[in-house]
Amino acid sequence: MNSPDAGRRLLAQADELAQFTEDPPRVTRVFLSPQHRAAGEKILAWMREAGMSASFDALGNAVGRYEGTSPGAPALLTGSHMDSVRNAGRYDGIFGILCPIECIRRLHAAGKRLPFAIEVIAFGDEEGVRFSATLLGSHALSGTFDPAWLEKKDAAGTTMREALCTFGGDPDAIPRLKRDPATVLAFVEAHIEQGPVLLDKDLPLGIVTAIAGGSRYAVDVTGLAGHAGTVPMGMRRDALAGAAEMVLAAERIALAMPGTVATIGRIEARPGAINVIPGEAKFTLDARAGEDGLRHALEEKLLAEFRAIARRRNLEVNFTKLLELKAAQCAPRLIDQLAASLARHGLSGHRLPSGAGHDAMAIAPVAEIAMLFVRCGNGGISHHPDETMTAADAALATDVLHDFILHYEARPA
Amino acid sequence: MNSPDAGRRLLAQADELAQFTEDPPRVTRVFLSPQHRAAGEKILAWMREAGMSASFDALGNAVGRYEGTSPGAPALLTGSHMDSVRNAGRYDGIFGILCPIECIRRLHAAGKRLPFAIEVIAFGDEEGVRFSATLLGSHALSGTFDPAWLEKKDAAGTTMREALCTFGGDPDAIPRLKRDPATVLAFVEAHIEQGPVLLDKDLPLGIVTAIAGGSRYAVDVTGLAGHAGTVPMGMRRDALAGAAEMVLAAERIALAMPGTVATIGRIEARPGAINVIPGEAKFTLDARAGEDGLRHALEEKLLAEFRAIARRRNLEVNFTKLLELKAAQCAPRLIDQLAASLARHGLSGHRLPSGAGHDAMAIAPVAEIAMLFVRCGNGGISHHPDETMTAADAALATDVLHDFILHYEARPA
Repeated sequence: MNSPDAGRRLLAQADELAQFTEDPPRVTRVFLSPQHRAAGEKILAWMREAGMSASFDALGNAVGRYEGTSPGAPALLTGSHMDSVRNAGRYDGIFGILCPIECIRRLHAAGKRLPFAIEVIAFGDEEGVRFSATLLGSHALSGTFDPAWLEKKDAAGTTMREALCTFGGDPDAIPRLKRDPATVLAFVEAHIEQGPVLLDKDLPLGIVTAIAGGSRYAVDVTGLAGHAGTVPMGMRRDALAGAAEMVLAAERIALAMPGTVATIGRIEARPGAINVIPGEAKFTLDARAGEDGLRHALEEKLLAEFRAIARRRNLEVNFTKLLELKAAQCAPRLIDQLAASLARHGLSGHRLPSGAGHDAMAIAPVAEIAMLFVRCGNGGISHHPDETMTAADAALATDVLHDFILHYEARPA
Repeated sequence: MNSPDAGRRLLAQADELAQFTEDPPRVTRVFLSPQHRAAGEKILAWMREAGMSASFDALGNAVGRYEGTSPGAPALLTGSHMDSVRNAGRYDGIFGILCPIECIRRLHAAGKRLPFAIEVIAFGDEEGVRFSATLLGSHALSGTFDPAWLEKKDAAGTTMREALCTFGGDPDAIPRLKRDPATVLAFVEAHIEQGPVLLDKDLPLGIVTAIAGGSRYAVDVTGLAGHAGTVPMGMRRDALAGAAEMVLAAERIALAMPGTVATIGRIEARPGAINVIPGEAKFTLDARAGEDGLRHALEEKLLAEFRAIARRRNLEVNFTKLLELKAAQCAPRLIDQLAASLARHGLSGHRLPSGAGHDAMAIAPVAEIAMLFVRCGNGGISHHPDETMTAADAALATDVLHDFILHYEARPA
């Protein structure tokens, strides 16, 4: 085994895919764009070189298949997404595509076939940047793709349906992408952690226990605008001051509930003039927890506290729920098998929840899922050009995934 | 005297000027625009009807003059601005132009000349919307117009110099607009309060003691961006949470220092995605007080507290001073004369500082100043279409200003 070389090769491939971007030197690759097509074709070529049959499916996912000892056998699915956020890092999603292709390359080079097929899927959309709908590729595979999404428009007014036809896909064939659970053994996804936990614990790899569920809200606080010079402090109904108190309440409440996080990512004061007291403040709330019950308790506390702040300040507050994703539990039997692979490489099988959403969560309706996390450098920064992964960690993750595939034991019938 | 009619006529004239806007039904009238020209021509026509000689000056101010008993005598100046903010009210600035024109109309109708001339000036720019430089008209009259401002560009890239030439003005003649203090008796400005103080006290009119000075800062808080799902609360360096604490500190500190106000009118979190912990937060700070020493003390406390918050949260904070305006004191002798006029109308001469800036403050270098405030309805809202003034208050203000002019006593030589 030539792991260090494999690690360097994977990172070089990630660099190569980073060239498929709409705004170099930044990395931005959105669903159904020319960059999606170019990256997908490069991935398909690598899949074929590794010994797979490979092609785009009707939704622009790049799918490679390595048959088992008998053709048409149920498949172990793996993969991740090839789209990116704007000004992204190079490994988010991409690593979970390149790593299993390398595993197949090794099987193929050794002339080895397993009692099951293996499929590597490069999902066309997970981030949802272009059409404000996420996990599109994996939703299609689990039959949870909502056809209404096809009418969603991008910033230029193009519908997803139009963009998919231009891409060469087939909107009408999306329902047929749904996998029959009888043909799927499991879905295992390798992914950069996108956080600082493994880095902080000095561990190269970790095993995901569950993918956190999340709720998103738009919060709108209304007070009374006024001239910054003429309204005494005691007579103000400043919407932004109320929103600021809510931002701090979210921080304080999530900090006091272990296993939860709450984030205000956007905020705006209106009318937004330097010399006008804000009459309105709008912000977003993203609340997550590995357990849905815990998340519901978090949301309840947050919204109650926001209402209390508004009441105390004579402001109005309104909430619009934008999104709710349930937590997805990883299968204990798969967690144990990953732990065994890690142990065979002398690694402790540290277990942690995933705070980020991943394709695996949308696959959950048709297959048991598992995830292998790889340490994220630079303080755990992701969704940012400074996202890093070492060649040594990439190689180790590949060795472990390869080992997991070799030793994979199907669920007892 | 037919005051109630006069009040209704003034409000109707304000409605008429509101038609000169770039985005009806909203009121937006910026410096050197076609709407500025049209409003100015209407005002010049009213000035002439009232008995004045009137014309645009080299900077687009509309200036009317009513000679005294001997032509060329020193003048009592009055007036206000004809430009507006975006989506403005109808009385801010405009009332201080219409009210003295009505006073002159009464003098003229009575065939009355005073021992001094009276000039009514409709300043072309006070708000500074188009070129991000304020009080341009009044700065020209006091010789404090900085010629470098002529090179400032509007959003379309047009310089003020180009716009002024297109308007028919003369950039090279601006220095000659400076008034010789020997030819100016004083400057008195009537203005809607733009705040709730008179409304709250149930008083139609008030006398300004000083125009508050102000400082404006851009504040930039830097932390570390991160994924909203993957970075535990305790490991975050959330720039927006720090900024929120600063917003509340500004509110708390100004509240504890009577006579000061502090406002955060704009805020932004970056990168500004719903699922990303803000790595940067930018906001503006507007701090004011009637006394410069008090304002300096306020600024010092605010900046020290912002620094302490940043230190505690392991954030960076940087300040850029955008503007500083010194407080302008109104002349005690003019305050007393206004109080006498109010008393002759059975009104208490309530005195209050102006938290807003006004043309009078830029005139202060060449003349003593005074201001008469008129009650602002609707909770004191201004810079907003809901700004209101009653016909009765408008009439009363006109009677008082007329009385002030009739009884005006020059400063003892």
